[in-house]
Amino acid sequence: MSGGGNHAIRLHAVRLGVDTRHEPVLFLRRDSEVARSEGFEAMSQVRVDTDSQSIIATLMIVEAGLLSAGQAGLSEAAWRRLGLADGGTLILHHPLPVESLAYMRAKVYGAELGGSEFESIIDDVVAGRYMDVQLAAFVAACSGERLTREEIVHLTRAMVGAGERLGWPGSPIMDKHSVGGLPGNRTTPIVVAIAAEEGLVMPKTSSRAITSPAGTADTMETLTRVNLGLDAMRRVVEREGGCLAWGGSASLSPADDILIRVERALDLDSEGQLVASVLSKKVAAGSTHVVIDMPVGPTAKVRSLAAAERLSGHFNAVAEALGLALHIDVGDGSQPVGRGIGPALEARDVLAVLRGEPHAPADLRRRALQLAAGVLRLSGRVRPQDAVARATAVLDSGRAWQRFQRICEAQGGLREPPQAAYRYDVFTEEGGVVDTIDNRKAARLAKLAGAPADKAAGLELAVRSGQRVQPGDVLMTVHAESPGELEYALEYFRAHPDVITLSAD
Amino acid sequence: MSGGGNHAIRLHAVRLGVDTRHEPVLFLRRDSEVARSEGFEAMSQVRVDTDSQSIIATLMIVEAGLLSAGQAGLSEAAWRRLGLADGGTLILHHPLPVESLAYMRAKVYGAELGGSEFESIIDDVVAGRYMDVQLAAFVAACSGERLTREEIVHLTRAMVGAGERLGWPGSPIMDKHSVGGLPGNRTTPIVVAIAAEEGLVMPKTSSRAITSPAGTADTMETLTRVNLGLDAMRRVVEREGGCLAWGGSASLSPADDILIRVERALDLDSEGQLVASVLSKKVAAGSTHVVIDMPVGPTAKVRSLAAAERLSGHFNAVAEALGLALHIDVGDGSQPVGRGIGPALEARDVLAVLRGEPHAPADLRRRALQLAAGVLRLSGRVRPQDAVARATAVLDSGRAWQRFQRICEAQGGLREPPQAAYRYDVFTEEGGVVDTIDNRKAARLAKLAGAPADKAAGLELAVRSGQRVQPGDVLMTVHAESPGELEYALEYFRAHPDVITLSAD
Repeated sequence: MSGGGNHAIRLHAVRLGVDTRHEPVLFLRRDSEVARSEGFEAMSQVRVDTDSQSIIATLMIVEAGLLSAGQAGLSEAAWRRLGLADGGTLILHHPLPVESLAYMRAKVYGAELGGSEFESIIDDVVAGRYMDVQLAAFVAACSGERLTREEIVHLTRAMVGAGERLGWPGSPIMDKHSVGGLPGNRTTPIVVAIAAEEGLVMPKTSSRAITSPAGTADTMETLTRVNLGLDAMRRVVEREGGCLAWGGSASLSPADDILIRVERALDLDSEGQLVASVLSKKVAAGSTHVVIDMPVGPTAKVRSLAAAERLSGHFNAVAEALGLALHIDVGDGSQPVGRGIGPALEARDVLAVLRGEPHAPADLRRRALQLAAGVLRLSGRVRPQDAVARATAVLDSGRAWQRFQRICEAQGGLREPPQAAYRYDVFTEEGGVVDTIDNRKAARLAKLAGAPADKAAGLELAVRSGQRVQPGDVLMTVHAESPGELEYALEYFRAHPDVITLSAD
Repeated sequence: MSGGGNHAIRLHAVRLGVDTRHEPVLFLRRDSEVARSEGFEAMSQVRVDTDSQSIIATLMIVEAGLLSAGQAGLSEAAWRRLGLADGGTLILHHPLPVESLAYMRAKVYGAELGGSEFESIIDDVVAGRYMDVQLAAFVAACSGERLTREEIVHLTRAMVGAGERLGWPGSPIMDKHSVGGLPGNRTTPIVVAIAAEEGLVMPKTSSRAITSPAGTADTMETLTRVNLGLDAMRRVVEREGGCLAWGGSASLSPADDILIRVERALDLDSEGQLVASVLSKKVAAGSTHVVIDMPVGPTAKVRSLAAAERLSGHFNAVAEALGLALHIDVGDGSQPVGRGIGPALEARDVLAVLRGEPHAPADLRRRALQLAAGVLRLSGRVRPQDAVARATAVLDSGRAWQRFQRICEAQGGLREPPQAAYRYDVFTEEGGVVDTIDNRKAARLAKLAGAPADKAAGLELAVRSGQRVQPGDVLMTVHAESPGELEYALEYFRAHPDVITLSAD
């Protein structure tokens, strides 16, 4: 019951400089007329309208000191979403009822939802009409294996429909995605260089790290500019066949960003949401052919071959429904890939493979060639039995490296990745054979050292599973940009020395 | 990774006067050393320690203007929970991992949890270690019919164990509870007076309204003092056999208050949580014999006899497991009870029944006698076939009214309920027969008029279902304490005239 526009009171918007990340927060004085007359209570949801925008914000009530009479304070997120560059006036209302919450509740109670119901939920989510607790209930209701295949298809379609969609001339438009959980697995720059050199179109957009020590966009940012607008991206792709851009500037599948944020806070796994998340972004990015890298291992995201099989079944079914050509590469995910973990350290590995340096990490090279071959094969332009040889030839001839340099030049110039000022070598006191390297703990260690915010920070692994070591050998080197962060990481390592385990000979 | 106490930086606590209801919020300057060195991000959870208390708060980052260097701001809820009457210093840490979140996730994935797992979840919930999104996921995972009977028993036990527990000398200790959803159904004061007059011990604690226009505590507050401490309650009960106090001052089943808050925000129904909520409060209040009033009707909380049967099955099973004697009275919930809806208006109905006034609402009198008879019967002190006659005799003789006056005197004196200054009669323009009175819409209308915060506000129904009306008859009167609120309520009524529907003769 807003009471309509009759009693509408205009308040002067004040930017309070309060950072609440994504959460729009409205601050009102306890004695403000509108709070009393509308019966707004602290932490209730309030519709905040300017002349052109409307958002839902959480209300916090403040004493008279913080605001003058007639003012309404806004958090940074609220200020941004209302587009209030120069300030302005606000009108407050009770939010309209959110009809799709009935579908959210039906899903919580165990119902199977149809396409229009998912659409309605996702539209409201993107419009910011869901409170975090409501998002959490929806995410929980879709978690584990609670979505049927039909529901995953509906959810994916709804997520595509709720955002922008890129179009590229011609077909196929190649893409790849790694299901993740494997630190250092930075194959994308190599795959794009090979595919583009083979004449394929691969306008790759990548994300920054969310919970990992580096995303492809973080790594590429140590080498070139990745914050390309859509026009710049088109120019690069037109000239070089491929790009390596940050995907965040386009609003592709914005529902995904919102749901992922809540999923992470809850640390819930959801097969259905994973598939919808990945494929909705691909369809929205205009891709037609997608290779999925699915590493399997006890400390990777996908922990068993049985899980990989079930997940692949969902991926294939949804891709088919959406008209995407898909190839899934189920690979070894038992330990990190390459030497470096962290943006710049991974960039060094990528450069070493592209440049064909003798000490380039063999496992990263092998995986990149395998996935590049998958892309060539899926494109239909290369005979299946020739794909690996073609990818290898493009890399070994130096053509991939040249293409990569041209792509970076087109994006704004290639530079060398930075070096960390503080380094610490972790030695082994015993001899033996390296037994396991824990993906999750290695990632945690790299993050405590400062990655991905500190580009040069992270971990450099000196050993692989199965490798024999002598007392006094270096197992790994921690890189940090400040002594404090180095100490944090080492403290964690002292509490969790099983990042790397050895077995006696 | 808190980094332990070594680098601990003490910050000066500042009370910012920000009301966030139950949500503890911490405000830090963006340039504060501890935010940077610990890597705290906006909206992350931070452990805030004083020398004696520890809470988990949500972090908001502010610009330098709001706080001086070395200061940390706190919301009212955080300030209260830390017991910082005169200020003090704070140390901030990353929160310790919450182990029970693994059980919460297992429940989300569909596992059946055992007793120790529910205990661990509920302990963490009460200790404030769950973020709202995590509470929401847990509530969603337990919603609908997702809890087995064994799980409801475990949850109830865990909720009892996580709070204080009252003890009363002797047995039986009588109690009653209404499942709710029926405006005006204010039988408790009458039932307590009759039971106490019959020599039973009935130390009744009631809640204030959460989403309804009045709780029993709100109504009783218009007649006497209800905010009794435990000692005062004991004195009243010792003298008069019963009391009518607000239950909020004791910390009985505090987990329930937290879970209910999230359940309401989500508007989720959960049979299991309803049963656990009601019975945990009863066991914690020291009750041994409980009568449950379960009105059934299309706009009541329990909508069908089938639903009432299933819910009763759960109630009986859990009561048996907890050693509670239980009687469930499934009654008519098709329309509001009595005339008044709102604290003072319902108090008038209660007084009219107790005083035996000729115009006292017959339906309220009938229900109260029915429930009082249930209490007498369940106590084992009255032969089942005599219970209704005994209850009626106590009421009609005026002994219940005398007992009620003595209870109110013992609680601090009886007063007359207030009258609203603004009233509006709603007439019917047509003649016919009253068809339906919608419980939910009537409640909404009473709340828009100002109930329960405005004690005298609410609705006075002049008709019942089945009653014949002539053009120009009054259907109901809206009571409000301000013209603005009267207008809000009438606006709602104009949009929803079907609060009361008529059918042609």
